[in-house]
Parts: sequence; C-alpha cells; structure tokens
Amino acid sequence: MLIVMEPNATEAQIQRVADFIESKGFDAHISKGEIQTVIGAVGGKTIDSRDIELIDGVLKIIKISSSYKLASRVFKPQNTVIKIKDVSIGGEELAMIAGPCTIESYEQMELTASELQKSGVKLIRGGAFKPRTSPYSFQGLGEEGLKIIREVADKYGMLVVSEVMEISQIPMFLEYADILQVGARNMQNFNLLKELGYTNKPVIIKRGLSAMIEEWIMSAEYVMAGGNRDVILCERGIRTFETATRNTLDISAIPVVKKLSHLPIIVDPSHGTGLRDKVAPMSRAAVAAGADGLILEVHYEPDKALCDGAQSLYPNQYADLVKDLKIIAPVVGKKI
Amino acid sequence: MLIVMEPNATEAQIQRVADFIESKGFDAHISKGEIQTVIGAVGGKTIDSRDIELIDGVLKIIKISSSYKLASRVFKPQNTVIKIKDVSIGGEELAMIAGPCTIESYEQMELTASELQKSGVKLIRGGAFKPRTSPYSFQGLGEEGLKIIREVADKYGMLVVSEVMEISQIPMFLEYADILQVGARNMQNFNLLKELGYTNKPVIIKRGLSAMIEEWIMSAEYVMAGGNRDVILCERGIRTFETATRNTLDISAIPVVKKLSHLPIIVDPSHGTGLRDKVAPMSRAAVAAGADGLILEVHYEPDKALCDGAQSLYPNQYADLVKDLKIIAPVVGKKI
Amino acid sequence: MLIVMEPNATEAQIQRVADFIESKGFDAHISKGEIQTVIGAVGGKTIDSRDIELIDGVLKIIKISSSYKLASRVFKPQNTVIKIKDVSIGGEELAMIAGPCTIESYEQMELTASELQKSGVKLIRGGAFKPRTSPYSFQGLGEEGLKIIREVADKYGMLVVSEVMEISQIPMFLEYADILQVGARNMQNFNLLKELGYTNKPVIIKRGLSAMIEEWIMSAEYVMAGGNRDVILCERGIRTFETATRNTLDISAIPVVKKLSHLPIIVDPSHGTGLRDKVAPMSRAAVAAGADGLILEVHYEPDKALCDGAQSLYPNQYADLVKDLKIIAPVVGKKI
Amino acid sequence: MLIVMEPNATEAQIQRVADFIESKGFDAHISKGEIQTVIGAVGGKTIDSRDIELIDGVLKIIKISSSYKLASRVFKPQNTVIKIKDVSIGGEELAMIAGPCTIESYEQMELTASELQKSGVKLIRGGAFKPRTSPYSFQGLGEEGLKIIREVADKYGMLVVSEVMEISQIPMFLEYADILQVGARNMQNFNLLKELGYTNKPVIIKRGLSAMIEEWIMSAEYVMAGGNRDVILCERGIRTFETATRNTLDISAIPVVKKLSHLPIIVDPSHGTGLRDKVAPMSRAAVAAGADGLILEVHYEPDKALCDGAQSLYPNQYADLVKDLKIIAPVVGKKI
Repeated sequence: MLIVMEPNATEAQIQRVADFIESKGFDAHISKGEIQTVIGAVGGKTIDSRDIELIDGVLKIIKISSSYKLASRVFKPQNTVIKIKDVSIGGEELAMIAGPCTIESYEQMELTASELQKSGVKLIRGGAFKPRTSPYSFQGLGEEGLKIIREVADKYGMLVVSEVMEISQIPMFLEYADILQVGARNMQNFNLLKELGYTNKPVIIKRGLSAMIEEWIMSAEYVMAGGNRDVILCERGIRTFETATRNTLDISAIPVVKKLSHLPIIVDPSHGTGLRDKVAPMSRAAVAAGADGLILEVHYEPDKALCDGAQSLYPNQYADLVKDLKIIAPVVGKKI
Repeated sequence: MLIVMEPNATEAQIQRVADFIESKGFDAHISKGEIQTVIGAVGGKTIDSRDIELIDGVLKIIKISSSYKLASRVFKPQNTVIKIKDVSIGGEELAMIAGPCTIESYEQMELTASELQKSGVKLIRGGAFKPRTSPYSFQGLGEEGLKIIREVADKYGMLVVSEVMEISQIPMFLEYADILQVGARNMQNFNLLKELGYTNKPVIIKRGLSAMIEEWIMSAEYVMAGGNRDVILCERGIRTFETATRNTLDISAIPVVKKLSHLPIIVDPSHGTGLRDKVAPMSRAAVAAGADGLILEVHYEPDKALCDGAQSLYPNQYADLVKDLKIIAPVVGKKI
Repeated sequence: MLIVMEPNATEAQIQRVADFIESKGFDAHISKGEIQTVIGAVGGKTIDSRDIELIDGVLKIIKISSSYKLASRVFKPQNTVIKIKDVSIGGEELAMIAGPCTIESYEQMELTASELQKSGVKLIRGGAFKPRTSPYSFQGLGEEGLKIIREVADKYGMLVVSEVMEISQIPMFLEYADILQVGARNMQNFNLLKELGYTNKPVIIKRGLSAMIEEWIMSAEYVMAGGNRDVILCERGIRTFETATRNTLDISAIPVVKKLSHLPIIVDPSHGTGLRDKVAPMSRAAVAAGADGLILEVHYEPDKALCDGAQSLYPNQYADLVKDLKIIAPVVGKKI
Repeated sequence: MLIVMEPNATEAQIQRVADFIESKGFDAHISKGEIQTVIGAVGGKTIDSRDIELIDGVLKIIKISSSYKLASRVFKPQNTVIKIKDVSIGGEELAMIAGPCTIESYEQMELTASELQKSGVKLIRGGAFKPRTSPYSFQGLGEEGLKIIREVADKYGMLVVSEVMEISQIPMFLEYADILQVGARNMQNFNLLKELGYTNKPVIIKRGLSAMIEEWIMSAEYVMAGGNRDVILCERGIRTFETATRNTLDISAIPVVKKLSHLPIIVDPSHGTGLRDKVAPMSRAAVAAGADGLILEVHYEPDKALCDGAQSLYPNQYADLVKDLKIIAPVVGKKI
C-alpha cells in the first residue's frame, strides 16, 4: 500500500502516518519526492486503508497488490484448463453448457437432452431449486430434480451443471452434479464459497449484478483458498442505467479477465439479455471476444417452459448458433 | 397488464396475443384506439411478460399493478408504527440505532453502551457474524457475541439489533435479539425472507447495492406475506459510477418510499458513505428528508475497532449529531 | 399516452384527469377495467406527463408511442443503406473507418493512409478540433487539418470522416469532409443536430456516455426531421460502475438498435475500451453481434501519436483484425 | 505519477519504463520495494498514462496529483465567497435562487418575482434559450426573454441568473445577466468554459449526468484558468439504474466537494428529482448536508407553465420551504 501525502503535509503528519502503519505490523518506507511524500507500507497482514485516509495530511491511499493471488495471472501465467472426464474447460474446446432454466419433469429433460445431443452438447444444465420473486411461482423440484437431470445426463453421456443455493445443499449436489454453479446473488456469500473450496468439483461463479471485476475474481480466490482450484468465472450482465435490455452484458469483461486471471471465463447471454432474439448475437460476440464457453438456456419447447421461456432458445436455434460458432471459434484459436 | 400493439399490427396478430393470454388463464380486453390497439390482461395468476413481448406485432408490455400489495400505501394508507416495549419505529420519535460494527468483547460493548446511554440511545446494534472478504480477517464472535450484546442491552435497558445471515441462525437470533437485520447482500435471499415472515420480531431489510426501490419493497412483501408485518426498510447506498464515496447514499429514496409504502424507512450513513467525516452531514440530510430513523456505527474508541473503525463515530461526535437532529427533526414532525 | 388510475380512484379524480387531458387538446378515452381505470390520451400535440402524474388518484403514466418516428423501423421496415460514391454503409459491406485520433501533419496522415490502403480502407478519419481536458494539451490543427485529410484522402481515393464541434464549423466541414461526426458530448446539442439536418452529408451520431438507447435514436430523429435521412448511429461505451475499462462498450445495443431502427449502427471500440489490447476482441465481438461497421483509431506509429496513442492500433494489428473479420462477417451476412 | 511494476518485472522492463518517461520530459525516480518496484515520474508536462500502462511489466499507473489546482482546497484552504452587490454566495448566507424554468412573458416574470420577493428572494432565475427534445416544443424567447428578466429583476432589486448555451451568446448574457449558468450538457464544453474564464461575472457549473466529481471540479478549473475565479458548482443529479426518480440527487457530493474544493456548492432539487413533491424534502436535505444554496423552479402558477411545471413549486410551497430552512440552516452555520 502507498500513502500519498498532501503537498503541504508537515513532518509531524508524515511521522504520524508512519507510526500508525508500524503499529499495525507494517514497515513504513518514506520517500520524499519533489512535490509530495509517499509512504510505502510493506509486510503487514491486514489494515483498513480508510483508517489512514482519515489522518491529517493524507491525500490518497493506493492499493498496489491486487487482493487476490491464487486467481491471478501474475501468480500463474498459463491458462487453467479444467478436465472432467472427456470434457475440458479453458482449453482449445469451447465449453457449451445448455439446458432449461428449471428441471420440470423427466420427460422435459429427456426431450431437451435428446435434442441437445444432436448438436454435440456434453454439458447439460437445469435448476433444481428456484427461489422466485413471487411466492406463487414454481419453486423447483428439489432433490427429485437433481435425480432426473443425473439420470438423463447419464443416458446421453453428459455432465451435469446445476446451481447450489445454500451450504446445507452441498452434499446433495456433490452426489448428483459434476459442476456446481454459484448464482449472481450468492457471489459474495463467503460462507458458501469457503465450503465449496473444500469440495473437489469445479465451481462456476456468476458475476453479481453490481460486482466489479476485481470483486468477482476475489470470490474465485475464496474458493481456491480452500484447496479447490477448479473455478470458472461466468459473466451474466451488470446493472446499468440502460433499460432496453434486462442487464448490460459486459463483453469487455472477457479480455479484462483474460489479462488479470488464468481462470476460464464463460458467458451467459440468456440472463445477460433476457430475451431470446438477443441470445444468438451476444453468444457470437462472446466467442469472438475470446470467451472459453457459453451457458445457454435451451428448452425442447420454450412456450411450455415453467420459467424463463422467453429467454430460452428453441433446439433448432441452438443448432444454428453452433453452426455459426464453428466458423467464429477458430478465429480466436478455439474449436467446437 | 397492458399489451400495446404496434400501429400496423394485423387482426391475426392481435388475436394471437388474446389467445395466448387466455391460454394462461387471463381475460383479454381488446381496446382499439385511434393509433394503436391495447389489450388488457385481467384476472390470471402469473405470466412472464416477455413471452408476450416475443409475439409478432407486440410493441410494449406494461405492468400496471405494482408487484407488492401488503407493503403498498394504496393497500394501507396509514404509516406503520412498530412498537417494541417503550420504543416506537415509524411514529413521531426518530429511531436512533447505534453501536459498533462488530461485537468484539464485553468490555467494548459495555463502554460503548455506557457512552450511548448518555445520548439517549435505546436501540443498540452490533454484528455477531462477519463473513469478510479476506479469510484472514476477524469473523465475529458468533453466539458468544449475541450473549454479550444481550447482557449489555439489558443492563442499560436497550433493545438489541443484529444481522442474521442464514436461516439456520434464526432461532438463535430470536433468543437474543429484538430486531433482526437482513444485510444488503441478502436482500433477495428469498428463503431467508420467507422464514423471517414466520417470526414475530421486527425485521430491518437493507437495500441491495443494485436494488431498485420496487425490488426492495418487494423483499418486504416477502416477509409480510408470511404474517410478520413489522418490516423496516433501510437505505444504505447504491453502486454508481462515482467513486469519491464508497456508495451513493440515495436520500431521494426516502420521499419515494414514503409515497409508495406505509413502512418505516431508516438510513445507514455509515455504510452509505464509508467515511466518518461524511456520516454527520448525511445523517442530518436523511432526517431533513423525512427518514424515520438512523442506524449508525459508533465505537467507544474507533481507532481500536476491529472492523470499520474508519466509518465509526466517536461517542462525542454522536452526541453532537443528536444535538443537531433535535433541531432538525421537528421540521419534519419528528422528535428525538 | 395511457394514464393508469389507482385501484381506489374516485369518479371525481378520473374526471379531473380527463378534463386536464382535454384542456391540452387531447381526446380522453376512459376504459374501466376490473381492477383499475385506464385513460387513453389521443390526438394532442405535446404534454408533460408529470403534470398528470401529480393529479390525485393517478398511479402511473405510460408513454405508448416511441418519441421518434422517422428513425423507427415500424415506420420504415427496410434497412437504410447510405451510399457515398463507391462506399455503402448499412448494406452488405462492413463500413471500416480508420485513422488517427488527431490530424497532426501531412506526413502523419500520408504515412497512415498509405498503410491503411493496403488493408482496403476506404473511409479515413482524423480529428481537426480537439478541445481537451487540459488547456496545455494539443488542441488540433483546425481548418489546416481538414485540408490535409482531404488532400491525403483524395490521393488514396478515400472518403473523409471528421468530427464537427459547433454550428459555426458546419460550412467548413461541408467543404472538406464526406461524413460529419457528432461526438458523444454533443449527442444532445439539439441546435447542432438541427443544423446538420439541413445539410446533405451523412452524419454519424456517437452515443452519449449516459444516454439511453431511446434518447440516442431521438437524436437521430432530430437530424432526420430537417430532411437529412443519412444518419449512422455509433456505440462507443457507456459509463457504469466498472472501472477496469474506461467505459463499458454496450455490445447488446447492436441487436437492440437493429430491432428499433432501420439506421446503420457502427461501433467504436477504441474509445469504448480505451486500451489497444482490448480493441481487437471488441471489434470482433461487434461484428459478430451484427454491427454495420467499425470506427477505429489507427496510427502509423502510435508511440508518436499526440493523442490517444494508447488506444490506437499499429497498422499490422489493423491488418490482422481485418483478416479475422473476413472470417466472422459472413456469419452475419456481411463481407469486408 | 507513480508507475507500479509487476512483482516479477525484469530490470530491462523497469529501464524501458524509465527511458520512456524521460523521453517525455519527466524525471524517473526508481524505488525498489520489498515486493515491487515503483517508479515516480516527476516534473514533466503532459503524458498519457495509458502509454505507460501498455509497456510490458507495468501493473498499474497511479495519478497522484489531482488534475485541478486553482479549484483545490489544498491550494486555497479558505472558502471562496462570491460577492455581487448585496448578495454573497459561499458565506454565511444561503444563496436562494428561484424562478421559472423558462421566461414566458413579462407578466409571468412579474407575477412570479412579486411572489418571490415576499419570501426574500434576491436571485431570480429563468431560461431564455431552451433547445428541447422535441422540435415542436417552445424554444424560449431568446434575447427578448433576457430583457424581460432584467427589467423585472431591476424592479424588485434582484440579481439575474440565466443559462448561456453557446460562446456566441456570451456578450448578450453579459449585458443582461449577473450570474451565467452552464448547463449539465455543457459541463465539458471546454471552449465555452474557456471563454467564460475571460469574463468577470460569476459562473454556475451544473454537474453532468455522468460526471465524476473530479471531472466536475476540473470544469471549474477551466474557467478559473482564464482568470475568472468566481465559480459556483451545482449538483443536479446523476444517472443511475434507479428509475423512481428522474435522476439520483447525489447529496453526498456536498461534503465531498467541501473537502476537495473551496468553491461554493449549491443544489438543484427541481431537476435532480423531476417531481414537485420531492423538491422540498431534497432541499431540506441539501441544506442539512451543508450546501451553500439552492436553485429552485418556482412559477406563480405551475399548471400554466410552458415548461417543467411538474417540478415547479407553487409560491406558497416555496414560502413554507423557506420557513423550514430558517430552522435547519443554523445547524450548519448558515442563515437565510
């Protein structure tokens, strides 16, 4: 951390800052510049920078080191490639995760999976727990749903991706799912993240609606600190003043994350835009910008979907999209 | 819900919309205007408006009824006043909730409470569970902390306000706390809200960093739907592009909420600004704008605080603020 | 406009609204629904909806017709294709506009154009007037700069794109430039837009940093109302809470605009991200999402650029990007 | 400027940064810390920090000195108090600026001024040029309007505040107005600001809808650099995701500006909220937070206003507000 003093800061003020830093276990390196004195704080453990900011004569505090380490590309320059059976995420192959918003029935999953298989999908998604804004809406099938998606996935040789909502659900998810997803609202549920760090299954972390990229990577760090290094970041839109789309899908987060971190990044254009006719353009954009994969809502018959049908693709739309991506992916060194 | 058709929508398109609405259990009222046809959907239960938006010829969907009812001032015109022992929230008296960010020790709570009592504080706050960004930071005393705050509160005749983080903690909080607080990150933890609706203690709901006012009131509705009508809304800053303050405290939310809802609204200028020297001006502003109370971080010695000392007031600063508020409150029909 | 009354609105309140509307020259169509009364206002000229919102018993005002007409796809379903000599914008061919931020000298423009020609560029850009944040920075060559870019463009058979800042500059730009650009800060300079509507040269309108898509299209309408129908919209990033990029390039604005309007939309990834290494990924993303073209900063030697060198591509980077776009463009029915 | 190198930056990379800085006329001060090397750039004139950010091995660039100097409280610790005849702005007395959105007629200004005088108003406002979103709306009376407001102001011993839109209008405004206002959309019209710096009348600068506080103060610097030190900042709301209010009035900008700058800051709650019933609460909040004044829309009969009637106060509402402010102002060392 660097503490920049005001141009007219007095010796006493400078000393007071140095003393404070040292009282917290840091070394203080004072460097008097032509215009301003800068004090470096090195070696301590933890300090609230605002405590320093409030000392007289302090102009600005600058955090030098990023708050994450394990997730940082400086720490590990090579891309992380996560392997589960015959699927790799973060490598040359695009990770295409598809399926309905919610698991509704065995028949629905079966019909959807059968369609998806034709387009080569190896990762199927579906929600089992759906706490909804309205208490009258369908809330998901729970464990029953997980059993269904597991059975269908096994039938078609697919892997299961599903969202875990609470710590108490982790054991259940470890039994049925191959990849555990953390939703945007739980991105800073640190207790949940910590527990997932003790598991040995890959974790997808969706970006919070108002999360800065640095905070999002920090959430990955939380999981990694527990020992689980298989974390996948998922961009799904941020909240801005624009109301024409449900959220603003931040495509530029892809190259930004690629520079800061070695972790795979995928994109969810279904939630990012909220409307089916925006999903294909944004999927193509995400891949063209270098994303490692996509997570898409597809339903064998969206008009009958109990949840988010409006943002779900028809199977033939998904097939068309895959055709487009087969052309775009090689431009960024990927294949599908 | 109103469906506005495009000016050149065909008869067939209009009929298709009407059929779709009716298939979902609504009545369709078609009204052909000079320029556009508008279809009203009445009586059904639940429908995803985006499904209609995707039908050809549809220009716009307009939700007429607000999503909340119990929390709405239309439903209940008179202000809700919550009474707990000798304290009222939402009435003439300003609710002043003060205390440290975190419960650190009996001594800390005792010293702080003793100072606060001199300024007439009847509601003491303090966190027992503190999941933090860094796993190396102090994580709170847990139940031990709740015991301490309860003991100190009883000694000084105060009521206890503390944040509950998970469903599993509810019974413990019911034992020790008088008012349960839901943090900003949990504002849309619908399972937690639902459970709190079955308790009989008042609940404070903090506004999420990117929550629209309507969503925030909807969270109150969730609690109220369970039977617990004693909900207090708490504005604590939203995330905007401005970085000079940690968040942008949305003071205008006060008159907006007052118009939309009968529930009390209080303000947290400590988290809303993140810096001690902004707390007093924003506290005065909140009261002048008509807030029903404040929740403030005060520590008997902020420099020693384990958490958020930089945004905690010194007891004498709190006393000064109360003096100011005594003058401002009567302007808006309040007292302190 | 539709006025939705509160569920418990009285007859007198409904009548008062109807009277007010009629006093402003509108017809009032009252339609009593099962739950709420809705009043349609038809035929009048102009009314401030907030005046109605303030009348007792009014719940919500809903604007039905979009504020623009000439720019609307409802009004003109076919894409607008703008033709200038052998260049088309909005048709099958991607419009690639490239050149330095600022015109610095004949030599600089000559060297840059000579490089760009190798990549097939037909539209060269360069700024002549550069009001800068700091009064000590280079402020542009003015008319001298326009002469240079015209001369160089003619030598290489290119068209000139340059930003006009003030009404008084319009005649000068009409003499030297082929396409006039309106900067983001001038997006709502209605006087300037109105004057440009009386010219016969195409106008590029950059989206303001905090402009909603509807407001941006409305600015196009302003130009079109004057008679000039050749307007090109240019997405260049909006301001959000994220600070990792200078702005957040709103790629989803492309499909949104395509649905709402028939006008061509291009993207400026140089200003949208502010850093050279993000320009190529975001350019690919923009084309993959369906943009009609790109406007890019390219300098024959960015390290020597007097302005925005950090976001300017090297000529070989531009050439590489074109190679990538040649593969991506056909996916969206375009070519380059 | 400080350049922070990556932890594993090589000697060659460090040297390359130092060389680059020196090539731009700065001195490079290399300071090798325990973890990272930090290079200070001192003494040069102007450099685009992104050029350095792109050099290999560079982690982060940190701007130390604020971009403004004349407007900075570090430069001038005492509050600026602007005196015009018997009025002071920035001192003990609250500056109350009131009047209609637009000057409509002599009669309208006369009736409004006569009402305002009863409440002690000494500064009357009114717009003469009103470029509007719709070309069919009233566009203002122009110079005729300025003559009217001048005449009415002289009759009642008031000073005139009005918005200048273009450089060419400055001489006209100097003839009729006492304080020249720069609108939010012109906050970064640097040419206009520069010209206003050469005048000798106070200038009010409204904050842009997406302007950071630092950029806003920088706009003040632009005027001050020309010699005119009488600048007043005016907060009028920023654009956020919240749509319940037209804009989000950033009350916390008041204490922030007070710390960073010695210039007076006033608040415009009429535009900041857009609705009359929010104006009084936000006015009280602004004064309670320490604002130096308010600029308010008041019309002798808002229902007849040609512009923004919905956010204009009735004269009796203004009078009531003044009564409230008389109580609140002394709390922050002000009077009215």
